[in-house]
Order: sequence, then structure tokens, then C-alpha cells
Amino acid sequence: MTLSKATEIAEISHPDWKTIVDAHDRVRARIHRTPVLTSHSLNQQSGAQLFFKCENLQKTGSFKIRGATNAIFSLSDEEARRGVVTHSSGNHAAAVACAARWRGIPAWIVMPKNAPAVKCRAVESYGGKITFCEPNVTSRAETADRLQSETGAVMVHPYDDDRIIAGQATAGKELLEDYSELEAILAPVSGGGLLSGTCLGAKGVRPDAKVYGCEPERANDAYRSITTGTLQSLETSDTIADGLRASLAPRTFAILRKKVDGILLVSEEEIVAAMKLVWERLKTVIEPSSAVALAPLLRKSGLEELGFTSQSKSGPRIGVIFSGGNVELKW
Amino acid sequence: MTLSKATEIAEISHPDWKTIVDAHDRVRARIHRTPVLTSHSLNQQSGAQLFFKCENLQKTGSFKIRGATNAIFSLSDEEARRGVVTHSSGNHAAAVACAARWRGIPAWIVMPKNAPAVKCRAVESYGGKITFCEPNVTSRAETADRLQSETGAVMVHPYDDDRIIAGQATAGKELLEDYSELEAILAPVSGGGLLSGTCLGAKGVRPDAKVYGCEPERANDAYRSITTGTLQSLETSDTIADGLRASLAPRTFAILRKKVDGILLVSEEEIVAAMKLVWERLKTVIEPSSAVALAPLLRKSGLEELGFTSQSKSGPRIGVIFSGGNVELKW
Repeated sequence: MTLSKATEIAEISHPDWKTIVDAHDRVRARIHRTPVLTSHSLNQQSGAQLFFKCENLQKTGSFKIRGATNAIFSLSDEEARRGVVTHSSGNHAAAVACAARWRGIPAWIVMPKNAPAVKCRAVESYGGKITFCEPNVTSRAETADRLQSETGAVMVHPYDDDRIIAGQATAGKELLEDYSELEAILAPVSGGGLLSGTCLGAKGVRPDAKVYGCEPERANDAYRSITTGTLQSLETSDTIADGLRASLAPRTFAILRKKVDGILLVSEEEIVAAMKLVWERLKTVIEPSSAVALAPLLRKSGLEELGFTSQSKSGPRIGVIFSGGNVELKW
Repeated sequence: MTLSKATEIAEISHPDWKTIVDAHDRVRARIHRTPVLTSHSLNQQSGAQLFFKCENLQKTGSFKIRGATNAIFSLSDEEARRGVVTHSSGNHAAAVACAARWRGIPAWIVMPKNAPAVKCRAVESYGGKITFCEPNVTSRAETADRLQSETGAVMVHPYDDDRIIAGQATAGKELLEDYSELEAILAPVSGGGLLSGTCLGAKGVRPDAKVYGCEPERANDAYRSITTGTLQSLETSDTIADGLRASLAPRTFAILRKKVDGILLVSEEEIVAAMKLVWERLKTVIEPSSAVALAPLLRKSGLEELGFTSQSKSGPRIGVIFSGGNVELKW
């Protein structure tokens, strides 16, 4: 990926508050207002009061249905008739297929030929038409471009798209509407759709709420991009958090550069430990990408890294977005 | 175990409705009224409308806290001062330790020395005093008897106790109170505390509701007892449903013989498949024993086995009690 120039990035605008409110009105009746779980034992372990926004319990098993629904129901009838095309190996693929079925239009989905069988089955169950490609970024983009020109379908990019960002923003908006006293929100970051949306959605409700991105050390492009102020690429990653192997796009980077309060890195061991803790204590199934947003809070220095120094007895009130719950169980 | 004579069994009385209502009043403020989940895809797969009572989300992670709380808060102050003693390798141990802590009294828990570390940690976290024994029924009972005579503590048997049965009855009572249109309830059966309680609690609200017990083929003593009309023993079992390795007691058998509508057996493969489906689709962590109560509904003949022949389009309304969610995750 060519590094975008700072001047170009600075010129990118972002969805305004009205766009996000409109997105919420558009998706509200079609998706779940997901529950928020709390856990006495996780509060004790973190020294904070934690509020878990359970997008793992969202339709299609992840927050991705928010952006996909907003994008697909934003299309004019003429655009919609042509159908939609996207590329994704994971949750965005299922979300686009599902939202397209709701609108009654075709969805062409480009998936790498090594995508997990469970993800392919999910796309097919919603009637998505899968085209397999080689498992690399170039083949993925080329195949999607070819399909788009063959079919005339509308491209719905997984995150470099204002309609998607505005849709993903509704998760953080809901969380702050339900728990307006939250002082900080943690969300995982990959392409940046959820994180940039959370900055816009959460801070739209409570401007002084801090928003932090959480990222695997093994896929640390967002950390490097924010630290250097220049969009950095990620060649490849084998992190267990399979939803976080993409890298920021110019549009999401532009928002994060202005709005995010920091990026926290976590190790693979921390991801697994956090996931196990959630399964055991909250009894809710999250995927590794979700655990990335809890992991920083489980280390001794966690609250300090978030800038909380003198603490009240019960600790600061922190929201954590569990992005999804789609895991392949191998028994 | 000596097989009890039919005449003796017939003379055993069971908790009446007032006893169950009193138990509910006693435990209500201390435990969760657990949520009931539904799943479109599991409805499709079973051909029924399923309502899952989530005792996996109960305090201590299982329904056992209902009976333990009722028993321990039924004690007179004089009895309570002496503390309680029980034997259990699993969820009852944690429940007794937890309820004893709530009442502020000591709890001595006999556990087999091969009990899972996670179960021992749970008991210790509630302040229970563990005494290890050999992993067999004789050593367990002898150790508990010795502890009881040494300490003067009150024995709280895991299921051969009316206070426990009345407490466990509150799960089915809640389910029928919340969903009075349920035609049948399925619950796992081991020692029979939950199943006999469900017969009393559910049928107390809706007398014509059917109640079925679900049992691993590899631990089929309840099936044999109900089929033969004589209490049968279970020497040993290696079923993956580790909560279902006990066998009926005279008291629970006496209730089931009168009240239960049938016992359904499931294979180990069916248990694992049902558990996987729940984790993947409901995104809620259940232990294998819970999956036993769903498994019969996933086979083609499931509804027929329950006596449903001519079906409405949406199928019969059936409640399933998920008994617990305590699993040791090995990553």
C-alpha cells in the first residue's frame, strides 16, 4: 500500500452527527439493540466498573450488520436493483449477504479460498453468491473489481466507506445512550470502521468520553499509524484475532488521527486469557477479536495506561465493545 | 446400592405446593430470575418453538444455588451456627459454599481428590473448607459422615432432601410463570433433584404440562428405574456430561415415578453436537449436562418421542432447562 500523504488525509471529511442519527434510524428496527453485561469478578480483576456491549449477540453474530444494513438500505432503488459486491473473509461477508436478503437484492461476495468453512456456510445461508479468490489483498480487490464490472453491482467496502462507518457508529452511540456515565470506551481496531465509528458515535453523545483502540501486537498498523502520524500498512498477520488482520484505510485513519485517544497493544497470550475469562465468567461466547478490547484492562498497568491515576474505590466506569462471537469450535 | 422396595418408595411424601412457594420466597432476592433465550435457527432445526431457561447464567453458574440457598436459609439459628457439610465434586459444592457464606456460617465440603481444579477454586473462592476423599461413593459418604460427627454440622445432601428439591423446583416454576403456554419441559436428570423439582414446580403452575428427563445413555439409571418401576443403581459412568454421573435417590425416584412423563436417552455424540450448536448459535456457554436436555429435540424423531404427532406450522412450545455453564476450558 502506498502511504497516503498527510495533506490528502487531512482533507477527508467524516460522517457528521446527523448522518449517524439517520443511520441509527435506518438500522434500528432491523437489528438488535444488544444487551450490556456486567461481571462482579471482572470488575474486581480490573479495578474498574466494566460494561460489555455484546455485539456477539447481534444479528449475524457481529456489529458488521450495522454498517452493512445502513449501506444497503441507503441505496436508491435503481442502485439496489443492480445488487451489491464486497470482499471479506469474515463477518462483513455474512452481514452484507444478510442485509441484501432483507432488501431482496443479490449480493456477490469475494472470499479467499482458505476462508473458514463456517464463514462460507453463513454467507450461503443468507443467499450470498460466493466467488473464491487467492488469499491475498491484490487477488481480493481484482476479483471484486471484475465482479463489479461484470454485474454492475454497487461496491460495499468493509470499512473505507462513510455509510459503513456511520452504521458502525451506532454501537457506541447506543452504549453511551444506555450508560451515559461511561468515562472511556475500548473497541478493537482492524480496518478502523468500528473504532472510527465509535469515536463519532460515543463522543457524539458524550464529548468528553475517551475512546481507545485495542490491537494485537502482531497486527499493529493502527498503533504505528497513530504514533507516526502517517498511514502505515500491514503486510500480513497470523494473530489469533482473525477479525483484526486488515489495516486502516485513508478514511478511517483520517477520523482516528483527529478523534482517538490512544491505541493499546496486546499480546497473543493476553488475547487468549481474556477470551477464556469471558467464556468462563460471563458465559458468553466471544471471538478472539472481541477479547482484544478487554485484554488491556486485565494487566496491572491497565487503568494507568488509560490515564486513570487517583481512583475512586469502585474504579472508573469503562465500556468495552465485544465486536463479535463467531468462532469455529473444533470438537 | 440396595434396591428399595416398592412399598417403601410409595410411602415417601414430597414437598407440597406451599413448600415450593415458600422456597421461592426464601431464595428470590438472593438469586437471579434467569433469562429465557430463544433461537430462530434452533426452532427451525427442531420444528418446535424452544424456550431455554438459562441457569448457566445463575449465580455460581448453575441451578444448584436454588436448593442450597433454600436449605441453608431454612436452618434455625441454632442449626446454622453449627455450619453445614456436604459432598459433591461439582456445582452443588460451590452452591453450598456460596449460600453458607451468604448466611455467614462455615461449610465443609467433601470433594474427590480428582475433582477438576476449577471446581475446587470455586469452592475456595466462597470460603468453603475442602476435605478430599477417594473418588468413590463409599469414601465420599464416610468422609462426610466423619466430618459431620466431628463438627456437628448439618448435612445438606445434593438431592435426597426435600429442602433441596423444593429449591430446585423454583426454576421450572419461574419458566412456567414467564411462559405459561409451554406444553412440555425438558430437564437433565442425574440424582433427580432438578427433574423431580421441575415436575413439582412446572406442573404446579400448569398441571397439564409434560415434563421429561433427559439422560446420557452411559448413565441411564433413571431410565432403567422408571422403566422397571424399581430404583436402579449406577455403578460408574464416564459420560462427558460430568454433572450427570450420580443416580436417583429413593426420595427423587418416588416423585419421578408419580410425576415424570418419560426419560429420553442421548448418546455422547448427540450431547457434543447439541453443546456445539448452542455455543455457536445462542453464543451462551453451557456445560455438557445442559446440552443433554436439548439433544433429543435435534433428532428427526424428537417431537414424536415427546408425543407430538399432528403439528401446527410453528410446532409445539417446549421449555428446555440449561442446568449450568461451568466448563473447564483447555486452551
